[in-house]
Amino acid sequence: MDKIRIIEVKQSVFEDNNKDAENLRQELKNKGTFLLNLMSSPGSGKTTTLTKTINALKDEMTIAVMEADIDGECDAHTIKDTTGVKVIQLHTGGMCHLDAEMTRQGVNELGVDGVDFAILENIGNLVCPAEFDTGSSKNAMILSVPEGDDKPLKYPLMFTICHAVVINKIDTLSVFDFDIEKAKERILKLNPNAEIFPISAKTGEGIDAWVDWCRRQVKEWQSK
Amino acid sequence: MDKIRIIEVKQSVFEDNNKDAENLRQELKNKGTFLLNLMSSPGSGKTTTLTKTINALKDEMTIAVMEADIDGECDAHTIKDTTGVKVIQLHTGGMCHLDAEMTRQGVNELGVDGVDFAILENIGNLVCPAEFDTGSSKNAMILSVPEGDDKPLKYPLMFTICHAVVINKIDTLSVFDFDIEKAKERILKLNPNAEIFPISAKTGEGIDAWVDWCRRQVKEWQSK
Repeated sequence: MDKIRIIEVKQSVFEDNNKDAENLRQELKNKGTFLLNLMSSPGSGKTTTLTKTINALKDEMTIAVMEADIDGECDAHTIKDTTGVKVIQLHTGGMCHLDAEMTRQGVNELGVDGVDFAILENIGNLVCPAEFDTGSSKNAMILSVPEGDDKPLKYPLMFTICHAVVINKIDTLSVFDFDIEKAKERILKLNPNAEIFPISAKTGEGIDAWVDWCRRQVKEWQSK
Repeated sequence: MDKIRIIEVKQSVFEDNNKDAENLRQELKNKGTFLLNLMSSPGSGKTTTLTKTINALKDEMTIAVMEADIDGECDAHTIKDTTGVKVIQLHTGGMCHLDAEMTRQGVNELGVDGVDFAILENIGNLVCPAEFDTGSSKNAMILSVPEGDDKPLKYPLMFTICHAVVINKIDTLSVFDFDIEKAKERILKLNPNAEIFPISAKTGEGIDAWVDWCRRQVKEWQSK
């Protein structure tokens, strides 16, 4: 296994996270790097979705990944081994989310010169990451079928701040009591502009529409 | 649907959460009330596991439940409608965990005189709730099969502070790539005293051993 660089990121000493985030977003805009902040519960399939997404796009653009975790680096190894793109591991020292300053430390260590599409895989948590603007260009989240269609009712902020919601593990719909139309309705009630992508990262079903959304975001970010 | 009482709980203004927690634990001990703090990711099956557990025990002891959520009260209704025990809903105002003071506010509103077994269903989150002693007698968590057997590697603190780990949704083992022996080994490496209960809250498989663990905890708490 290749060695993965591990960065210990520290929370901002500054008060104004929103301003930090806006500055980082503008800097990334000037560099032509689209940064996607990808969030979800633990175990929803972020890493598998990412490897499929990266492999579908890596021939047309330069991609780099920041894997954030409390501890461990198994996802960073998975991404590196299955896609070959540049990956670093961010450790948050127990913190449950990333703020803009932590993201900036990651971006600086990763190096985004010439990177078209940078991806931050946030801590697996539906609560705290939703409260902190990371400076990303767009936010996306994954809700997996086994978690249940009631999650938008319980974690409304997360569904409100995401531009795209991936509903993953649709290959297991027959096993779980998950009403996909009800889930969509609940998401759109909170966030009428959300784009929703039912997929199975495992079988590949639905992944093209999601990949196409990512492709469009990168192109729009670089052209405006 | 019966009306559910909703309590807005506020974080402690005091610094010393550990002392608050120890005081609450002692007060509950004096009252003979065993308080279980039940934690997990979103959608791991806490509520379904609880309804099965309560229905198995409610004829032998008095049970009461505090449902904690960022928003909504659907789980509180489910518990009330399917078990008939006393339930209140705690809303945390966006907070990602409960501390001892918030738990005390809940305990006071719930009323635990004559209650043998009180249950706190914590916020669905594998990170922050692990960092705050709630004053509970014991901690338990649920890891569900769809989340993956790597979760102890990524969220080590949660697995370290729990006296019991329930592995739920074992009826879906054939659908997911989850190695139950590997999961057990990873949990026991972090926490050699953890008691591990593979169950399916849906089919009832394995639930008796978990219910028996709860029964023993309540009896030991009341006899010492």
